[in-house]
Amino acid sequence: MNAIDNLVSLLSRLPGIGKKSAQRLSYYILEAPRSYAANLAASLSGLHEAIRRCSVCGSFTETDPCPVCVDTTRDTSLLCVVERSSDVRVIEESREYRGRFHVLGGLIAPLDGVGPDDLAIDSLLARLRVEGVQEVILALNPTVEGDTTALYLQKLLKDMPLTVTRLASGLPVGGDLEYADRLTLARSLRGRIAM
Amino acid sequence: MNAIDNLVSLLSRLPGIGKKSAQRLSYYILEAPRSYAANLAASLSGLHEAIRRCSVCGSFTETDPCPVCVDTTRDTSLLCVVERSSDVRVIEESREYRGRFHVLGGLIAPLDGVGPDDLAIDSLLARLRVEGVQEVILALNPTVEGDTTALYLQKLLKDMPLTVTRLASGLPVGGDLEYADRLTLARSLRGRIAM
Repeated sequence: MNAIDNLVSLLSRLPGIGKKSAQRLSYYILEAPRSYAANLAASLSGLHEAIRRCSVCGSFTETDPCPVCVDTTRDTSLLCVVERSSDVRVIEESREYRGRFHVLGGLIAPLDGVGPDDLAIDSLLARLRVEGVQEVILALNPTVEGDTTALYLQKLLKDMPLTVTRLASGLPVGGDLEYADRLTLARSLRGRIAM
Repeated sequence: MNAIDNLVSLLSRLPGIGKKSAQRLSYYILEAPRSYAANLAASLSGLHEAIRRCSVCGSFTETDPCPVCVDTTRDTSLLCVVERSSDVRVIEESREYRGRFHVLGGLIAPLDGVGPDDLAIDSLLARLRVEGVQEVILALNPTVEGDTTALYLQKLLKDMPLTVTRLASGLPVGGDLEYADRLTLARSLRGRIAM
């Protein structure tokens, strides 16, 4: 049953999907109407063609610059710095924030060989020089890597004429921003603290 | 971000995948090398063309009849009746069973409108008449639907010159055969009880 094994092996590479779950999903797809597998295949094939990275903020978008970066009703004095594009989505869904975003593309993690040069920090500094930002909000996971990156950025920005803040805890320490619920996230935005 | 939302909506139809998980998977796929999405798409497109149902036992297979049904070293006196094709795989992986299989394609569930006529019972009776089966092993989930179906089949088969057995418990009651570990499943096969 090569075709099934192949699908199982591909699905089990996904985060949080083990071999048993991948088998379950594969058989579900086999027993579902053929159109489901066809639609999923088409969606996956077209994904990378439809989605690129915004040349301004670095988040995933269908148009470049992304809708947030071209939205003139946004508060340009606020810039929210996040690790990944998916964090932009989570913060947008909290409906608490009306500024812009900047995606770092990772966090400083010396053990994994990720240093400041691997992150979109140069483009962040360039934006801060021209966009009239008055407050940088570091919306990074409350983990060792997130703390390290926040500290690094705080030192880097301390001589610029702006405030650096960080999301209030309220997020469970050691957790993942992506799994925070809307209200907790909204509260941590409202109660953000100066660094 | 229509292309992402589309993928999220398709993935969240899968069993055990909620909206948050589907988002997480979608962003993982976006950030993974493009070849991953392409391979997954190709695997899904080809799935239904590569896989059909065995015309003898009803399980998913790339060749018809399936490898188990054409394997002459199999013990034809044993026939293991399962709900779904994925159950065949789980039992094969237990390496405890050397007979053949028959896939019912479901369980009797009056509340869901599934009656005996919706299951592959006629083809089961036809096989029992010609294949020289001496023991029918009912490997059905220990749930209400599984018990109902087992009881129905036991009555149907009670005048035929064969033994009807059922997997021993050892499987946790109310659980799902698909999640049993190899050893538990092997033990429940060895200790199967006459009905």
